[in-house]
Amino acid sequence: MKTLSECSVAVIGLGLMGTSLCLDLKQRNLCREVRGVTRNFTTILRAFHENAVDLATTDLSSGVAGADIVILSTPVRAVVRMLETLGPILWPGTVVMDMGSTKAEICAAMDRLPSTVQPIGGHPMTGKETAGYAAAESGLYEGAPWVLTPLPRTTAETVSLAAELARAIGAIPITMRPARHDRLVAAISHLPFLLASALVHTVNDSGKTDDAVWELAAGGFRDTSRVAASDTQMFLDILVTNRDAVLSQLDTLNGHLLELRTLLAQNDEDALQSKLSCSQEARAAWKPAKRGTASQAKN
Amino acid sequence: MKTLSECSVAVIGLGLMGTSLCLDLKQRNLCREVRGVTRNFTTILRAFHENAVDLATTDLSSGVAGADIVILSTPVRAVVRMLETLGPILWPGTVVMDMGSTKAEICAAMDRLPSTVQPIGGHPMTGKETAGYAAAESGLYEGAPWVLTPLPRTTAETVSLAAELARAIGAIPITMRPARHDRLVAAISHLPFLLASALVHTVNDSGKTDDAVWELAAGGFRDTSRVAASDTQMFLDILVTNRDAVLSQLDTLNGHLLELRTLLAQNDEDALQSKLSCSQEARAAWKPAKRGTASQAKN
Repeated sequence: MKTLSECSVAVIGLGLMGTSLCLDLKQRNLCREVRGVTRNFTTILRAFHENAVDLATTDLSSGVAGADIVILSTPVRAVVRMLETLGPILWPGTVVMDMGSTKAEICAAMDRLPSTVQPIGGHPMTGKETAGYAAAESGLYEGAPWVLTPLPRTTAETVSLAAELARAIGAIPITMRPARHDRLVAAISHLPFLLASALVHTVNDSGKTDDAVWELAAGGFRDTSRVAASDTQMFLDILVTNRDAVLSQLDTLNGHLLELRTLLAQNDEDALQSKLSCSQEARAAWKPAKRGTASQAKN
Repeated sequence: MKTLSECSVAVIGLGLMGTSLCLDLKQRNLCREVRGVTRNFTTILRAFHENAVDLATTDLSSGVAGADIVILSTPVRAVVRMLETLGPILWPGTVVMDMGSTKAEICAAMDRLPSTVQPIGGHPMTGKETAGYAAAESGLYEGAPWVLTPLPRTTAETVSLAAELARAIGAIPITMRPARHDRLVAAISHLPFLLASALVHTVNDSGKTDDAVWELAAGGFRDTSRVAASDTQMFLDILVTNRDAVLSQLDTLNGHLLELRTLLAQNDEDALQSKLSCSQEARAAWKPAKRGTASQAKN
């Protein structure tokens, strides 16, 4: 099996995640070659000019031809569609990874790839609310958990190579089954997005009768609502491909919100304080794996 | 009427907000004298030793005797109780301000002060999830809106002096009625706190069956849940003294959350995308008055 340094890596999709990966691979000289594949010709020129890739193309076939590792970095359903297209054109022995935010549908599509290629699902747990090529930055993956979801057909060598790649750019590989990943991220990623959206709608409603609400909004609103500014298409794909888990988490949250509402309405201060203290202690005790970057906090 | 530079300012309560105010007043040499009043003797020693105040005392009467401006910086219901105690001991002509997070109950209590003193409500729209003396920092108020809620009996000179104080430490004074303030902050501050608490409870529930959820939690969870780590007693006072407005905002939010749930459950992608885009655009268009500080973003 090849080591990362011997590999040609083709990244499909030069948005925030794909480009940030290219920058790390290139700047740290981690592999033999970094290729970028995107439909956007302007991005091709920029990526090449800004030395984010060794080779850039809008042509999928030539982009993946002879690549040792192909990494799909597009919204979830575009990954699923892309896997259909890639099946017939991938060279035997290619390792196919992705960075999609839900894993069950992607891994099912990966399992339909020819038996000559080696698929493994992946999801680096980082990002920010700004999307696209221009938002990319080197070091984005530093300290972030990177979930790997091998298929039954995935070899130990492929898992090892994927983990090597994650570690090489500072991420922490964690291996688990796709369904477990999807259940966990429904709670800590997809639910916060829906909450943030509902919060922004609520403040927006206030703003219709009194727009001073936007003037007063400070750090609490800023942080609680931040992810609502995320790319809508990306999150739509996430929600639709993880519907059941998200609905289940929404219902659990709704139960807690209703309980808080009832305690406040009934003026049951002791029970309210006890419930608030429980979340206060849990949140204060938790330390995120990856500290916030300036760019994540600035808005 | 005196200008700020001629005033002796007594700050009651040396937690995050009060101490940060003292530090700014002292370090920028903005008034004649800065006094700190707190029940905690250790804090007295630290504040004096660290040059946060010119004079520090545990004795309320001597702390406020002869002060031109008395600023109450404790949780809301402690402010209300303190106003009862202060009534008989304040010197004639004293301006009484506060920094409490809800204004209706405090301003009602202020109105019961002797007619010889000049009360004005206030609420600087900043803070962080860590509380107490040790969390204080100079520059905390820089760029933050500072709501002033004058009473009918408050003179123009008092409003002007309070606004001068806010501006002197870099805040932006905004004058409005107490009920309007309370309605607006229910949406942008109290609601996010309850949401964050419910989110932490939900993730905590997930963690009971699979504690990898805490390992995967990243920037989205970190920011959306941050305010859940805030001081519980402070928020209990806020919720209880702003119950109706908070319940009303909770109901509005719940309507939006239910709508998002229904659209997802019914797989109505167009309507879901349209609703998500609406909050995406509103949040992306909003620029907070005060940019995040490192300490706000770090956890």
